[in-house]
Amino acid sequence: MKFCSNCGSPVVKRVPPGDTLARWVCDQCGEIHYQNPRLVVGSIPQYEGKLLLCRRAIEPRYGYWTLPAGFMENDETTAQAALRETLEEAGARVELDAPFSMISVPRVNQVHLFYRARVLELGFKPGEESLEIALWEEAQIPWQEIAFRTVGLTLKRWFEDRGNGAFGFHAEDLQ
Amino acid sequence: MKFCSNCGSPVVKRVPPGDTLARWVCDQCGEIHYQNPRLVVGSIPQYEGKLLLCRRAIEPRYGYWTLPAGFMENDETTAQAALRETLEEAGARVELDAPFSMISVPRVNQVHLFYRARVLELGFKPGEESLEIALWEEAQIPWQEIAFRTVGLTLKRWFEDRGNGAFGFHAEDLQ
Repeated sequence: MKFCSNCGSPVVKRVPPGDTLARWVCDQCGEIHYQNPRLVVGSIPQYEGKLLLCRRAIEPRYGYWTLPAGFMENDETTAQAALRETLEEAGARVELDAPFSMISVPRVNQVHLFYRARVLELGFKPGEESLEIALWEEAQIPWQEIAFRTVGLTLKRWFEDRGNGAFGFHAEDLQ
Repeated sequence: MKFCSNCGSPVVKRVPPGDTLARWVCDQCGEIHYQNPRLVVGSIPQYEGKLLLCRRAIEPRYGYWTLPAGFMENDETTAQAALRETLEEAGARVELDAPFSMISVPRVNQVHLFYRARVLELGFKPGEESLEIALWEEAQIPWQEIAFRTVGLTLKRWFEDRGNGAFGFHAEDLQ
């Protein structure tokens, strides 16, 4: 059973008038509780051709490597979210370049967005959600230990684009 | 007063342990109710150099012109959201090209995303949220009657890029 965040009454799932999808509807106060995908935003921090990855200190995928990223918060822009997550998870100050990848993951109702970034100074350190931080050459990337498919795909596209001499913007979907 | 959607108890706003921002927290069941920005996704439908705009039949901005767009739904990709909204609001079948603009609007906790698109067949018709649909030449665009700033900015960038002979990807913020 679910409840209305507005008045505390039980809600039911049905298609509201004029709508086409089932929603959680409160018959007591009339509130319709929409549910929408969330943005996960992060960066691809680069330093002298190496990429910064964080080893996760939390589930899911504890111990696996990832790019610094997390849920975008209210009251911020996508760029601010990328900078905040990079600082929180890697203790890294970076300068953002353009957005690089935007990957829809409808199975979990998320859209992942990564900015290219340049590490401004060494001396980063793991935040509470990271076990360790390391810079990786392309040949050393731990492909079998990457935490999420969106991160693996983003890293793959980044090295491809670098090899081609030009970074683009990659919009893709993962089922 | 707000209530827990999980158990129906009153919730309080405070910073949970290990967090840095205030959240709606339920002391009864322990649920933390995160609130995150929403994606508004749409298209820039083009037909023989003219752009398709919809005149809004709903508030806010009733009677003003907009690109077809709306809140992304769960279980869909950004591209599916753009196609769905274009069909719902304009009755227009389009073929999507690349994403063109991504604009953060932190004041309303939204990120607006527009794809370039090509109208596949004429004979579109207004959906329930539109009064009328029209194709506009650049010189005729009703700049003073555009519903939203993200739409105005997207149209401006589109005509600039067309003038320059190449369409890019534009990530911007509106305060």
